[in-house]
Amino acid sequence: VTPSGEFDLIRGITADLEQSATTILGPGDDAAVLRMQGDMVVTTDLLVEGVHFRRNWTPPHQLGRKAVAVNVSDVEAMGAVPTSIVVALAFPSALEETWITQFSAGVRDECARAGVNLVGGDLSSSDHIVICVTAMGELQGQAPVTRAGARPGDIVAVRGRLGWSSAGLTVLQRGFGSPKELVLEHQCPTVPYGQGRVAAERGATAMMDVSDGLLADLGHVAVSSRVAIDVDTSSFTVTDAVARVCAATGKPALGFILTGGEDHALVATFPLDVTPPDGWYTVGSVSDGEGVTVDGQPWEGTAGWDHFAR
Amino acid sequence: VTPSGEFDLIRGITADLEQSATTILGPGDDAAVLRMQGDMVVTTDLLVEGVHFRRNWTPPHQLGRKAVAVNVSDVEAMGAVPTSIVVALAFPSALEETWITQFSAGVRDECARAGVNLVGGDLSSSDHIVICVTAMGELQGQAPVTRAGARPGDIVAVRGRLGWSSAGLTVLQRGFGSPKELVLEHQCPTVPYGQGRVAAERGATAMMDVSDGLLADLGHVAVSSRVAIDVDTSSFTVTDAVARVCAATGKPALGFILTGGEDHALVATFPLDVTPPDGWYTVGSVSDGEGVTVDGQPWEGTAGWDHFAR
Repeated sequence: VTPSGEFDLIRGITADLEQSATTILGPGDDAAVLRMQGDMVVTTDLLVEGVHFRRNWTPPHQLGRKAVAVNVSDVEAMGAVPTSIVVALAFPSALEETWITQFSAGVRDECARAGVNLVGGDLSSSDHIVICVTAMGELQGQAPVTRAGARPGDIVAVRGRLGWSSAGLTVLQRGFGSPKELVLEHQCPTVPYGQGRVAAERGATAMMDVSDGLLADLGHVAVSSRVAIDVDTSSFTVTDAVARVCAATGKPALGFILTGGEDHALVATFPLDVTPPDGWYTVGSVSDGEGVTVDGQPWEGTAGWDHFAR
Repeated sequence: VTPSGEFDLIRGITADLEQSATTILGPGDDAAVLRMQGDMVVTTDLLVEGVHFRRNWTPPHQLGRKAVAVNVSDVEAMGAVPTSIVVALAFPSALEETWITQFSAGVRDECARAGVNLVGGDLSSSDHIVICVTAMGELQGQAPVTRAGARPGDIVAVRGRLGWSSAGLTVLQRGFGSPKELVLEHQCPTVPYGQGRVAAERGATAMMDVSDGLLADLGHVAVSSRVAIDVDTSSFTVTDAVARVCAATGKPALGFILTGGEDHALVATFPLDVTPPDGWYTVGSVSDGEGVTVDGQPWEGTAGWDHFAR
């Protein structure tokens, strides 16, 4: 009474999975069993073919990595320690088996980088590839760092890259494959793993991961915290690779940095008397009021990514 | 800097959500924060348009209910107390807004029935509707009931309906809408909420929810527990509605009962000296050996559902 295809595939994906002490029971039963220290955090995200990625722009290994990275990033942004993910994958039955194998390898690679266990999942057929990852983490007694805690007088600091992913997407859209480091960043962001926790322990008052673009995401912090935020553009350095894309396209570097999404850097607010952790750089300040400004002025460009507004 | 469509939609879906004490922080931040008593369980499942449902066969309210029910059922099957779900929904941008509204209402209705909180989610556009629900629960000090604990001498007992969903699907496939109770059961199964926990406390040695069909799912128990299981067909009663479908189609009632999937009844094994809880009925027995038999014989029909084998 054992059917074949689906279960063989799952066996291949889950073979010899390493599990840490958080995982009491991994894949293979109706549900996984996890042991969390303190309160847990949970977040879920979709990656849809043709919306979030194209198969010819993102190889399966990179896509598997990205599916993990963008979700674990949300766990980091709460100040939690990421522990576990479940992965649901729907794909056309005609998809080559090597695609699945390489996607799975990417998932497992990024799990190792992020320090999380793959504890369960689901497979289905569908017309297009749809990936849904749910990531979990433990707070270990630390209070969660929400979007609502920024206070007038706080500074705003960032850890990670800004604008690389959207510059990489621009490269791909124009049919090119370099600068390679930007294309790779679009295919899978370099999430600053562990830094969400570091920021929480340093006293971050609010935190987010930059998925919609820096200004859009700071807009969420400003609304939730009922404060105004100003971004100081002199804080940013433009890397050579981004500068080359700007020179080739005529697009301004600040557009990539301020409104490019999908970098999954972390942005946090800290009290003025706190030095941000190593590797974080100050990009702005919080004051009474509302809205987000750039060098004291409203930003005139478009800001952020909305699947249904465009 | 606030984009419109996606965020308005989310606000509509999450407005005035009730949250129990398990939920420290609900929807609206990078991740939800939950307080679990004891170890937690987590499970994820996809519902794909054209694979798991058709829009013209399952109205959006019923589909929203089903997406919750089939996932919470897996939490029940571990003997845990379901607490929380996150819902990811991808849908065509041309889909009527009333579909989303009614789907969301169904999600919230079933959450109330199941006693779980909707704590987060994600929305995306896509060519077809894809739903991914992740459900969580707490074990409150109880050991999880896995598939691997059945022992020779145990009895096998079921709580819930068997064959109703697949009989309802047969009705829909033939272009009919009645018997109504079977069609409704296909559109959203009646999960015996709370009974997984009751069975665990009564000493269930192994448990599953019947999603692939009774024989297929008992096959998983037999393999995991390294035992043989025999099903006694005299245990089953055929309801009038299923009998009417059998009369109209010439299909045997036992086929629906033994191999029909998606009913999400609970099946558990109990030590011989334990009386199954109220409402559970004994359907078979566990012995040394391997495989699943029906009245002592191999089952000749097809067994179970596999997305990739058919």
